[in-house]
Amino acid sequence: MKNKPFKNILVVGLGLIGGSIIKNLLNKKENLSIYGLDINLDIVKKANNLGLIKNRTNTIGSLDQDSLIIFSVPPLSIKEAIDLVEQEVDVREVIFTDTLSVKSGLLNVLESYSDIRTRFVMSHPIAGSEKSGLKSSKPLLFEDKLVVVSALEELTQSEYLKRICNFWESLGSKIILLDKNDHDRIFSMTSHLPHVIAYALTDFLLNQLGKKTFIYSGGSLEDYTRISSSDPRMWKDIMVSNKDDLIEAMEGFAFSLDKIIDLIRSKDEQSLEELLNSIKLKRDKLIDERD
Amino acid sequence: MKNKPFKNILVVGLGLIGGSIIKNLLNKKENLSIYGLDINLDIVKKANNLGLIKNRTNTIGSLDQDSLIIFSVPPLSIKEAIDLVEQEVDVREVIFTDTLSVKSGLLNVLESYSDIRTRFVMSHPIAGSEKSGLKSSKPLLFEDKLVVVSALEELTQSEYLKRICNFWESLGSKIILLDKNDHDRIFSMTSHLPHVIAYALTDFLLNQLGKKTFIYSGGSLEDYTRISSSDPRMWKDIMVSNKDDLIEAMEGFAFSLDKIIDLIRSKDEQSLEELLNSIKLKRDKLIDERD
Repeated sequence: MKNKPFKNILVVGLGLIGGSIIKNLLNKKENLSIYGLDINLDIVKKANNLGLIKNRTNTIGSLDQDSLIIFSVPPLSIKEAIDLVEQEVDVREVIFTDTLSVKSGLLNVLESYSDIRTRFVMSHPIAGSEKSGLKSSKPLLFEDKLVVVSALEELTQSEYLKRICNFWESLGSKIILLDKNDHDRIFSMTSHLPHVIAYALTDFLLNQLGKKTFIYSGGSLEDYTRISSSDPRMWKDIMVSNKDDLIEAMEGFAFSLDKIIDLIRSKDEQSLEELLNSIKLKRDKLIDERD
Repeated sequence: MKNKPFKNILVVGLGLIGGSIIKNLLNKKENLSIYGLDINLDIVKKANNLGLIKNRTNTIGSLDQDSLIIFSVPPLSIKEAIDLVEQEVDVREVIFTDTLSVKSGLLNVLESYSDIRTRFVMSHPIAGSEKSGLKSSKPLLFEDKLVVVSALEELTQSEYLKRICNFWESLGSKIILLDKNDHDRIFSMTSHLPHVIAYALTDFLLNQLGKKTFIYSGGSLEDYTRISSSDPRMWKDIMVSNKDDLIEAMEGFAFSLDKIIDLIRSKDEQSLEELLNSIKLKRDKLIDERD
């Protein structure tokens, strides 16, 4: 069942994700007013010049109940972004969402903004890229991509949740729901840890092999290290704001790594092959079940 | 300049790589006799039944100077494979190559086979897959893939080297030459270490998240862990036979990892962002230069 669409959209943070949301909405040519805020006023002006947003400064005026405000900023900038909205926009019964990769900081901040909290549904589009910034944004970024949606407790099954899910589906995304308290732990393992690993591997390889790093790998190592070209500011924020979960994940990964290294070191061929085999079989089974 | 093609090809080890070589050659319908050996006689019979090889058992008869013998076995099986050839094939002036991912064991073994050593040029096709075995082999596996070719000292710039490079080019591959003494150290870092990391990461994730491992990642984590579904026997062999280089690479990687973790732990945001940024800039520069 399709809910009524929003009449006004305000995107706070005009980067890859925020810019791509706007470009998708503009492509649809619906009767919709789009606004944007950014702490960098040059970006606001640029987005206005490009015809992406109506406003030329960070002052918007008022937004009514048919409006959606999307926070699309680095995790450590969320409080600043909310304060900017409170200061520059007269907000009445609008719905809020975000695109942050870490939720604990957002949840903490929302404790102090109860009027916003009661109208907030969290979103995490899995549509990142090693490209970043408004210049890299594109209308089809969300096509067939997953968006992980987490309701705050009092909002589970609410009208707000449905409208947020409808919004992402209108951008071409598929929705999966996740308990808000599980989000950061799961993503510390499935996303943040692989990024830390990729940055560390690339650092090591570049230090050892320099210009020779990629020439013997025929493209596969470029793929494997691609995420270490992600936005440094964004990923510094993600790592620091999910510090505790991430360090726990690192320790678990180090345990698995040491298990393999010890078997290599002791040349315990049988146990090593059994371990690699059990990892392969379990992974293949999960992938098969998903397909 | 194209050299004369081989009239007989013997592939020792009828797995993904060996089978794919044969299927490519058969597709060309050249005047060529193809033979295959495998320690598993069922596979030899199967390959014969499929019309891939002329022989039905491991006994071949004699091969003359227009012949190429390709060892395509797990690294720790190379001595057994060479012994099988010596025992089952009457070899006269043929040229030898291999497809092994680790070369130090091969180089050690060849010290005891000086007649083979003087006619051996090493090859490492970068055309692996998480699929393995004859059943997964396919004629276009080498199309546009890299093959790293390493001459033994006395053969540098020889006719043999040219014929081996021509052979791989005829399969659609691009050639890059590499000093034989650099091979294992470089691949310990660019290939073997990423495989160990992927196995460890998958092990950790499956233990922690079980069936939920892949459902919140929209495909990116499947890609990142894909190589942990590689052939366990093959990769056990690679890890054990390149133990010293691999452990050294692991220690270097751990150093880079600790550097990042320490900055996260101490919330040193500025140094962390600077480090991530320097990794990104160096990587982007190398990728740009290659394109």
